[in-house]
Amino acid sequence: MISVDLNADLGEGFGAWTMGDDEGLLAVVSSANVACGFHAGDPSTMRRVCAWAAAGGVAIGAHVSYRDLAGFGRRRMEVPAEVLRDDILYQLSALSGLARTAGTSVRYLKAHGALYNQASEELGVARAVADAVVAWDPELPVLCLPGSTMATVAADAGLPVVAEGYLDRAYEAGGGLVARREPGAVIEDPAVSVARALELVQEASVTALDGTRVTLDVRSLCVHGDSPGALRLAREVRDALEDAGVVIAPFVDVVAGPA
Amino acid sequence: MISVDLNADLGEGFGAWTMGDDEGLLAVVSSANVACGFHAGDPSTMRRVCAWAAAGGVAIGAHVSYRDLAGFGRRRMEVPAEVLRDDILYQLSALSGLARTAGTSVRYLKAHGALYNQASEELGVARAVADAVVAWDPELPVLCLPGSTMATVAADAGLPVVAEGYLDRAYEAGGGLVARREPGAVIEDPAVSVARALELVQEASVTALDGTRVTLDVRSLCVHGDSPGALRLAREVRDALEDAGVVIAPFVDVVAGPA
Amino acid sequence: MISVDLNADLGEGFGAWTMGDDEGLLAVVSSANVACGFHAGDPSTMRRVCAWAAAGGVAIGAHVSYRDLAGFGRRRMEVPAEVLRDDILYQLSALSGLARTAGTSVRYLKAHGALYNQASEELGVARAVADAVVAWDPELPVLCLPGSTMATVAADAGLPVVAEGYLDRAYEAGGGLVARREPGAVIEDPAVSVARALELVQEASVTALDGTRVTLDVRSLCVHGDSPGALRLAREVRDALEDAGVVIAPFVDVVAGPA
Amino acid sequence: MISVDLNADLGEGFGAWTMGDDEGLLAVVSSANVACGFHAGDPSTMRRVCAWAAAGGVAIGAHVSYRDLAGFGRRRMEVPAEVLRDDILYQLSALSGLARTAGTSVRYLKAHGALYNQASEELGVARAVADAVVAWDPELPVLCLPGSTMATVAADAGLPVVAEGYLDRAYEAGGGLVARREPGAVIEDPAVSVARALELVQEASVTALDGTRVTLDVRSLCVHGDSPGALRLAREVRDALEDAGVVIAPFVDVVAGPA
Repeated sequence: MISVDLNADLGEGFGAWTMGDDEGLLAVVSSANVACGFHAGDPSTMRRVCAWAAAGGVAIGAHVSYRDLAGFGRRRMEVPAEVLRDDILYQLSALSGLARTAGTSVRYLKAHGALYNQASEELGVARAVADAVVAWDPELPVLCLPGSTMATVAADAGLPVVAEGYLDRAYEAGGGLVARREPGAVIEDPAVSVARALELVQEASVTALDGTRVTLDVRSLCVHGDSPGALRLAREVRDALEDAGVVIAPFVDVVAGPA
Repeated sequence: MISVDLNADLGEGFGAWTMGDDEGLLAVVSSANVACGFHAGDPSTMRRVCAWAAAGGVAIGAHVSYRDLAGFGRRRMEVPAEVLRDDILYQLSALSGLARTAGTSVRYLKAHGALYNQASEELGVARAVADAVVAWDPELPVLCLPGSTMATVAADAGLPVVAEGYLDRAYEAGGGLVARREPGAVIEDPAVSVARALELVQEASVTALDGTRVTLDVRSLCVHGDSPGALRLAREVRDALEDAGVVIAPFVDVVAGPA
Repeated sequence: MISVDLNADLGEGFGAWTMGDDEGLLAVVSSANVACGFHAGDPSTMRRVCAWAAAGGVAIGAHVSYRDLAGFGRRRMEVPAEVLRDDILYQLSALSGLARTAGTSVRYLKAHGALYNQASEELGVARAVADAVVAWDPELPVLCLPGSTMATVAADAGLPVVAEGYLDRAYEAGGGLVARREPGAVIEDPAVSVARALELVQEASVTALDGTRVTLDVRSLCVHGDSPGALRLAREVRDALEDAGVVIAPFVDVVAGPA
Repeated sequence: MISVDLNADLGEGFGAWTMGDDEGLLAVVSSANVACGFHAGDPSTMRRVCAWAAAGGVAIGAHVSYRDLAGFGRRRMEVPAEVLRDDILYQLSALSGLARTAGTSVRYLKAHGALYNQASEELGVARAVADAVVAWDPELPVLCLPGSTMATVAADAGLPVVAEGYLDRAYEAGGGLVARREPGAVIEDPAVSVARALELVQEASVTALDGTRVTLDVRSLCVHGDSPGALRLAREVRDALEDAGVVIAPFVDVVAGPA
């Protein structure tokens, strides 16, 4: 039996503003990256998403970010390592408490937006993230880009590392993502995304933009739900995987130890 | 042996801004009301104050507030009960996580500023505070104004209630505080504050503005440290109490059950 | 020839978050209440809405608010008068500068949310609003609830006062709005709203909840566009008014002096 | 008669937090870089500092920043050019309106913190700053580092450019500042700062860290007042300049056209 996790960003509203269809998406994914208040996510939204996730058997991850509501955490910043570590601990703690009062718990961490990108490339940023997780719980898995600096640093710190694959981004022959500014970087054809999902799960590989077949062993697939089209695609991906006999389940229920 | 707690507000800086002398005050008090990020208190300040408090044997309380950095949490607001409860849970959780990574824990909650004042008078606000604490930990003490709505609501919710007395505010014959706008409401003579501290601890009473002797049984005295003069007065109060044989100790180490 | 103004709240997104259909609404209204950054409205949204409004001949008003992004400016607050006045001046100035670089200008002010409600009832709040407008430009009209404290205070300060009517709220026999918590307070039948618009414009009256006919002379009608249904209703209202020969035009182009 | 301007950062408090001695510093400098709310500076502080500056004949500059209260605008960020331009216009507009109601006006712009540093080096950032100023007022001077990208871009855009010198930073032989991390980068001896001021003003040169004499023609000297020591040094610099017959006056009253 093959199993895979589907993860998506949730709880990205703030006060009167909403983003995406949290309840719709919770019916599709097995892991929810829940915003913790720094790029999105007011406390009531956080608690509500935790409660819905708990009810649906969806695992909760802390989707930590730079402190940047105006930029939705998408803007690169240079934050001193100690400040960044403490900002992450603050978010992780806050979500954890709200999850607990909703009858569940935070099972993993994933960096959001610019913090995800910088942690994938910059040693100092990756270390600040890992330091926060180690201080919080050295058994807490980090969901990240395979082959990234974040993956290496987290593994070196003894943290469980879980690799994720992307269904809407082209890959380079070396296994990295094609930069967004490059032609063909973003996949817009749903059929290609579905095929990509099956290839990743069934063959542990991905076909790069240049046609090369790249080995890529991921335990989670990242899907999006910030538009009706994105949610429909996520649903299609799940259906195609289930039709192929793949079980969708939270990676935290499957992972025994560090990846 | 008589014992009393001294509590003060700490960690009220934010980023580049500082307020008060946290280290100086931690050498005087036995309980630290630590700001949680909504009226003051960035994560690094929170962690640092927790570490210092732990090192000095000072108990940590969550000093929760309305979300109001620009107003330092001093402006009354009408926040929907559920939002307020979740805002408090968020702050309590965040401080708790940072305290844990600093080797200590949150031992009580005290509302800050306008939230303290509104919870002292308004049933809905007091209930939102109590709901948050009960959801978090039904054994967590609430430090509040004796005779206030907050005290009643917290007690009704089964929470340990700890009463505090003020050294720089005049009391009414009924045991309430004289409103700030009234003449004589604020005590500026250090000698009067010191005498007040001794009266509260040794005789469980306070002399009201009109001369009436009011019974007031408090386990903690609130002192301030936001100016050099305030810190000096706090030091004097501690010295006077110790000279009189009173032991200064965190109320959480003395209280066995609900007050 | 009868003329009336239609006003609506615009530019209520913030960063990655959107609210309502600004471009759709700008095709319907003649006056745009533009958020200034305190309850919504990042600078780029502000500038963009100003440019669209200028292109469409829509007058721009400063939709000033309490500083409360998390509560969308809907929560009552007690802000010291001087701070409130300066907060309003800050927003008015900021929008004015962005409007100017978009080739247009701020033509009036309307308070938002809780500030609108409190200025309608509380003397101190209304005075802080009027003080800000007088300091900025004693000729700038204030769009507000007829008969409210805001209307009186603004008129006393010599400011042009423009009254607005509501199409989705029931009126009391005295001319005030029925409180939202009362049954029947909110009108949900589009036909009633359309009839209300015609009655207000053609007869300068409104039928109160108890059937009484109340004289109400308004120069602007407030419509909403925060949902597809609301936008459709606004469009219907405009069509019905135009079918009845009413010209929709910015009140600032019609008003000669103080109302 | 030789004349020079002394500029300093002012109005860097926020709500309950203060920073530096605004009134003390206004007695020393001739130009005040006033924070506009994004890294510091609430509206009431802005208005108050404008009023004091106007009373003292001190020229007001908009000290614009990244949106980063938690980091005091000192953290490098990657903000999209259009957003950055509009953020700057928002701040410039807001301060301008508050200055106007205080009876004065904004006479120049200076970027703050990380924005200053990035605009000194990065073409895109410098262009966003210049675009904002040109859109606002193509005659508004930009106070910046001589030889920097900001200086070049502003001059190319036709803006008046005013160069400033630093009294507490070592210079390289090429005229640039020695990076803060290098040994000797920061000057801590007041006597050296005073000598530096005299050399810059009387000889239009500066002695670099390696002893080289570098030509540097600046119209303003940047001083600091964020500590009692800094304020004392600023006072000493002013006294030394005046003793040497140098007149301290706002550069905006001296500059006729683009530098």
